[in-house]
Amino acid sequence: MRYLPAFLLFVFVSNAQIKKDQLNLMPWPQKIEISNAVFLLNKDFKVNITGNPNPRVFKAATQFLRRLDQRTGLFFNQGFITKTNEFPEANLQINCLREGKVGITEDESYQLAVNTNKITINATTDLGAMHAIETLCQLLHNNGTQFYFPSVEINDNSRFAWRGLMIDEARHFQPVDVIKRNLDGMAAMKMNVFHWHLVDDQGWRIEIKKHPKLTELASNGSFYTQEEIKDVVQYANEKGIMVVPEIDVPGHASAILTAYPEIGSKTDNQTAYSVSVKSGIHNPTLDPVNPKTYQLLSEIFDEVCPLFPSPYFHIGGDENNGKEWDSNPKIQEFKKKNHLKTNHDLQTYFNMKLVPMLKKHGKQVMGWEEIMTQDMSKEAIIHAWRGVNEGMKPGEAVVKAVKNGYQTVLSNGYYIDLMLSVDSHYLNDPMPKNVDFTAAEKARVLGGEATMWSELVTPLTIDSRIWPRTAAIAERLWSNDTVTNLESMHKRLKKISFRLEEIGLTHIRNKEVILRNIANYQGTKALNDFTKICEPYKVYKRNGGGKKYFMFSPLTLFADACNADAPDAYEFNKAVNRYLIDKDELSQSEIIYYLKQWINMNDELIVFSKNAPLIQPVLPMAQQLSTIAVELVANLENKKALNKTLIQENLKLLNERNSADVELAIYESLKKLAE
Amino acid sequence: MRYLPAFLLFVFVSNAQIKKDQLNLMPWPQKIEISNAVFLLNKDFKVNITGNPNPRVFKAATQFLRRLDQRTGLFFNQGFITKTNEFPEANLQINCLREGKVGITEDESYQLAVNTNKITINATTDLGAMHAIETLCQLLHNNGTQFYFPSVEINDNSRFAWRGLMIDEARHFQPVDVIKRNLDGMAAMKMNVFHWHLVDDQGWRIEIKKHPKLTELASNGSFYTQEEIKDVVQYANEKGIMVVPEIDVPGHASAILTAYPEIGSKTDNQTAYSVSVKSGIHNPTLDPVNPKTYQLLSEIFDEVCPLFPSPYFHIGGDENNGKEWDSNPKIQEFKKKNHLKTNHDLQTYFNMKLVPMLKKHGKQVMGWEEIMTQDMSKEAIIHAWRGVNEGMKPGEAVVKAVKNGYQTVLSNGYYIDLMLSVDSHYLNDPMPKNVDFTAAEKARVLGGEATMWSELVTPLTIDSRIWPRTAAIAERLWSNDTVTNLESMHKRLKKISFRLEEIGLTHIRNKEVILRNIANYQGTKALNDFTKICEPYKVYKRNGGGKKYFMFSPLTLFADACNADAPDAYEFNKAVNRYLIDKDELSQSEIIYYLKQWINMNDELIVFSKNAPLIQPVLPMAQQLSTIAVELVANLENKKALNKTLIQENLKLLNERNSADVELAIYESLKKLAE
Repeated sequence: MRYLPAFLLFVFVSNAQIKKDQLNLMPWPQKIEISNAVFLLNKDFKVNITGNPNPRVFKAATQFLRRLDQRTGLFFNQGFITKTNEFPEANLQINCLREGKVGITEDESYQLAVNTNKITINATTDLGAMHAIETLCQLLHNNGTQFYFPSVEINDNSRFAWRGLMIDEARHFQPVDVIKRNLDGMAAMKMNVFHWHLVDDQGWRIEIKKHPKLTELASNGSFYTQEEIKDVVQYANEKGIMVVPEIDVPGHASAILTAYPEIGSKTDNQTAYSVSVKSGIHNPTLDPVNPKTYQLLSEIFDEVCPLFPSPYFHIGGDENNGKEWDSNPKIQEFKKKNHLKTNHDLQTYFNMKLVPMLKKHGKQVMGWEEIMTQDMSKEAIIHAWRGVNEGMKPGEAVVKAVKNGYQTVLSNGYYIDLMLSVDSHYLNDPMPKNVDFTAAEKARVLGGEATMWSELVTPLTIDSRIWPRTAAIAERLWSNDTVTNLESMHKRLKKISFRLEEIGLTHIRNKEVILRNIANYQGTKALNDFTKICEPYKVYKRNGGGKKYFMFSPLTLFADACNADAPDAYEFNKAVNRYLIDKDELSQSEIIYYLKQWINMNDELIVFSKNAPLIQPVLPMAQQLSTIAVELVANLENKKALNKTLIQENLKLLNERNSADVELAIYESLKKLAE
Repeated sequence: MRYLPAFLLFVFVSNAQIKKDQLNLMPWPQKIEISNAVFLLNKDFKVNITGNPNPRVFKAATQFLRRLDQRTGLFFNQGFITKTNEFPEANLQINCLREGKVGITEDESYQLAVNTNKITINATTDLGAMHAIETLCQLLHNNGTQFYFPSVEINDNSRFAWRGLMIDEARHFQPVDVIKRNLDGMAAMKMNVFHWHLVDDQGWRIEIKKHPKLTELASNGSFYTQEEIKDVVQYANEKGIMVVPEIDVPGHASAILTAYPEIGSKTDNQTAYSVSVKSGIHNPTLDPVNPKTYQLLSEIFDEVCPLFPSPYFHIGGDENNGKEWDSNPKIQEFKKKNHLKTNHDLQTYFNMKLVPMLKKHGKQVMGWEEIMTQDMSKEAIIHAWRGVNEGMKPGEAVVKAVKNGYQTVLSNGYYIDLMLSVDSHYLNDPMPKNVDFTAAEKARVLGGEATMWSELVTPLTIDSRIWPRTAAIAERLWSNDTVTNLESMHKRLKKISFRLEEIGLTHIRNKEVILRNIANYQGTKALNDFTKICEPYKVYKRNGGGKKYFMFSPLTLFADACNADAPDAYEFNKAVNRYLIDKDELSQSEIIYYLKQWINMNDELIVFSKNAPLIQPVLPMAQQLSTIAVELVANLENKKALNKTLIQENLKLLNERNSADVELAIYESLKKLAE
């Protein structure tokens, strides 16, 4: 926290009782009552578990104790919890009736009661008990000398059954430890589905023992062994998370076809299939009329399915641009002969051959919305992803799916890779508005999924692109649909973001690593100040339509230290809005404070850049901002007339594409101040 | 970097050529010449490999490109290097005559020549080539707008063959990703032996398929599967690092005996063996007269040996306090019958039974120095660890071992867990001084090993306890014994420490995580300032003789954010020393600057503590320091007479044990100023 002038600094010192709106819970529980009592923590705090839970709840309770101890430094006497009924007098009692089946059909409800002497968790399943433990973690408060839980009564359950996060392993491979810490983050936010996008044009990431060529030729050395996959699935299961694997077919096939070109649809013999090193939609597509295609997929499914207990298997099916199919005479002839009018029909023919291959392993097919055609099996779950970027109404596939008898999951509006605001994700609801659904239809909207497409993320930056925004999405999927207040969400999200660090997420700590590298270790304050008002180019702009970044290009640049929801921009924009209405002194002071900070920032960046070439790309923006800021300060402080030409010039430059790949999130506010 | 007053701030802006003493290489090469030319980097920079190397050099070269790209943002065109002779015109040519055998007997030499148009690496083996790549990484410089390598000619080789790091997995388990990033750190510092201490009183960490009870009953759920071990060994091999496993016997046996109490030496049937949750020397010892002991160990070795290609197997053998043996009549009788006078003799009997078990797997025994008795096989490598803390001359076992025909490795003086200064480690040399060794005897001193005992480290803090001090130890083990200048080492170590971040080490970034937690997210500057003048209690003081911390106690406290070699204390102490000699104005200004900072720091800590109980333990120290500082400032600035009684009172309090478990590293300087 920067040291703010006195008018902005306040220190919250209070021994008063906590009120409900001071709780930083996320997702917000369905029902919560708070009273004036507190439960004080000391080193004799103990946990006891009763009932018939899966042993995973012992691990969860042990980890809870460790997290609590790390936050309080109380040196609890209790070490490892390994069985039920060990301490019947313990002040935290966790009662689970039975083991829960990880997935989307289980009872995840819980009751949490905190009283002066006792804390009680009651849950039908251990899944609900683990959710209760996470809520309890979030309830920890202190009064300066002691730690305590406020006395609450919570009854909670999820609104949607499918509360997911997808991670794309193909564009940038994420090692196991990255996955595990994000599973921890998901569990902390009561999310229960991990969609593992394991294959794409840029890489094949699964060991297939019968077909070692896939990893030998199409993984660039980065893939998971089957042991690693089992380990991750087990880890997820212990956190109450179901893992849904995806092998994206028939498009997105550059990797598969690098290993097995004979099942590709390309007829041009001059270029070979190769693992792609760029983003975008690629042409390589599996040949749907070649029996070898189905043989290979069948053998792959035979090895992959047993690794995943989940009853769902995602077959992808998106963005098949049909180019290779259209220019393949055999395929064209096949379409004619079999009355498959369009490529969509041919793809449905293809998909329907996969359905029994997976069904024999107990798997129900799921796919991106393009699989939804007239003849596609109603058992398939439709993954709705398209919206305005694809020229369609946001999530219109949800309505179509539901009306046509399909279950569906919404990802449009939860594309966290696009660097959009947390507000946009938070207000995006899987249940379409202004549509009449019957109860049966409503039930087909299973939930939603945040999608971490990894064209522009590495293990160093991925946590910062997932968190904390995905916590807000988690609330949208769990909490009541009346929980929509943006200010409350922002306030709570700030605290939740900090708490996510303690479970190992690197979304906060890695920023300084990037800045230290950029600054060539000379000092990062100026750069850090700048990241707080810049946001990476949104949607697909940063990658210049897939042209700028190779999959191995550096992602340790200024844009990688920036994020959506630039925090100082948020405050500055609010102050400017207030000021333009009220012209009040407090807001004016805040505005001047920031402007002066940015003038200093520019001076410092210029000095440091002499020994740090990576600072160069941000210098023009910093200078343009400083020039405008000087004018605005003089005007606000001394009523000096604005040099509007100079300001407009610099605003124009700020509006052009820069090589730092970031936009100035205070741009509109500067414009308004300069009018 | 804090913003220092003008007299302390200097900006190094130079287009002048780099001089040798401006290079930040570590370990310092055997021979290096520098000239005035430079090799400029651009996006067409390419690497070509020739010769007959192991494919690991392709990976190393690819990673080198990625690291370079991340530091320069140049967007290299070259992606993955997968074979030799791909770009004969490339400006970086790496020539390896042959594959190197990972271990301590291989040629690790290299020549590195940087010219204006070309960089050439020549090495007998790919191991030498990979060392050269690390040196080249360290040579990167910039002139504000461009990146370049200065023109150098380097001929380099290691002084010692055994340059190791040991990590203790038993006291605090470290997951695979922690191990891998530390292997990366080792490779960056040209270290080649990873000693894996896999078993101790506090846990058994290896999957043994024939004896699942070991992990089921004695691991608290934390252990490595054999697949994971193979993966780590493979990873290390690709970095030129040999992994030496250790199963510590016959003492340190609480874990083994929890699973197999029948082979313990205890005759008291009232207490059961259990996995220990405390530090220290424990009684549980294997029964050396029970044939089942040897059967179990033999079966364990049969499973573990094949996982490790290394020809060395460490059997521990330290700190057998003999208590259980002394009170076991059967064992006493056995000693009498077999003329084994002392417990040392009995232990030698025990060790000599292990030798053939390991030899049949091609393993040579290594053990802590206590195994060195008259009848111990000369093939055993003696690991010298005892010194003044054990009431002996530092590393005296080295001399004894060498004179008695044993090969030996030194760890005394490299115990990085004791929080001693980097200077003490740096000046500690495996080759004893003032002893006459023949050439053959000298050759028996294989090298040294930093030992990361993990009683007080977790995955969150372990990197900060290993790095950067181990880099200085790496230099001691690689470079010429004339490379001993402390000032040069400190200067280079500062830069090397930053560079270690880019390969994934968390020694810098995790400190702020700890401080944020302590500060309850209110702002960490004051705490950070305080960590820069405090050091954790040294040697075994922090743990209060093993009494204070359970193995599951929190290590997220102020002492865990502190480290050896507190940086501001280093500067302040130097300034005070200069001032006391010269009474110069510059030093006086620096002293006053720091004192005022600490007065402010105390005020801020008091304010923040109102919402952060974890700050409480440091408040007394901060106040005592502030009281003294106020007096000193008034005296230095205004010549006000010192209130010596008040100062002495507070110095006395500062000297007492505090609950924050840290000592004030500027204590002596304050004393001197107050005289």
